[in-house]
Amino acid sequence: MNDFDYQQLDDVIHSRIRLALMALLISVEEAEFNFLKEKVNATDGNLSVHLKKLEEANYISVKKEFIDRKPKTVYSLTKTGIKAFELYVAQLEKLIKK
Amino acid sequence: MNDFDYQQLDDVIHSRIRLALMALLISVEEAEFNFLKEKVNATDGNLSVHLKKLEEANYISVKKEFIDRKPKTVYSLTKTGIKAFELYVAQLEKLIKK
Repeated sequence: MNDFDYQQLDDVIHSRIRLALMALLISVEEAEFNFLKEKVNATDGNLSVHLKKLEEANYISVKKEFIDRKPKTVYSLTKTGIKAFELYVAQLEKLIKK
Repeated sequence: MNDFDYQQLDDVIHSRIRLALMALLISVEEAEFNFLKEKVNATDGNLSVHLKKLEEANYISVKKEFIDRKPKTVYSLTKTGIKAFELYVAQLEKLIKK
């Protein structure tokens, strides 16, 4: 395959905000909505849209939990998400390291 | 600065096709339109739009040349473009290497 073919990069991951979310989730295993929001510096609406897109691709899973009796939404990468992220990073590195 | 803030990534470079173009141009110094087109696997129209955007950001320069008596359009990175690409790569690597 041609290393410079831009379509090799996974479009679901490549958007800046989703890339930041994936990179963050791979580093922390799981994270709560407000933590993600603060770290990637997104608005509620924008974050929701992009988390949904990652969930639809089966890259992240979502669970509702009660922490200190408050409902929280917790996100983590799925195995599919981890694999997709690793492939994305490998292809990205091939592209930028000429 | 927060490493996971997605807005730190240069939006002009981050689009998949423009990233591929920048990575390609940094590896070859200069390149002709059809060479870029084949390497990044883009259509004429799509490629033109994105080269224009890189030119407007002063990341690439464009010159018209005659090669074998045929007119050719040749693209190369500017100093600003090289600097922007290096900064982009550094920030990207910080993001994906947690």
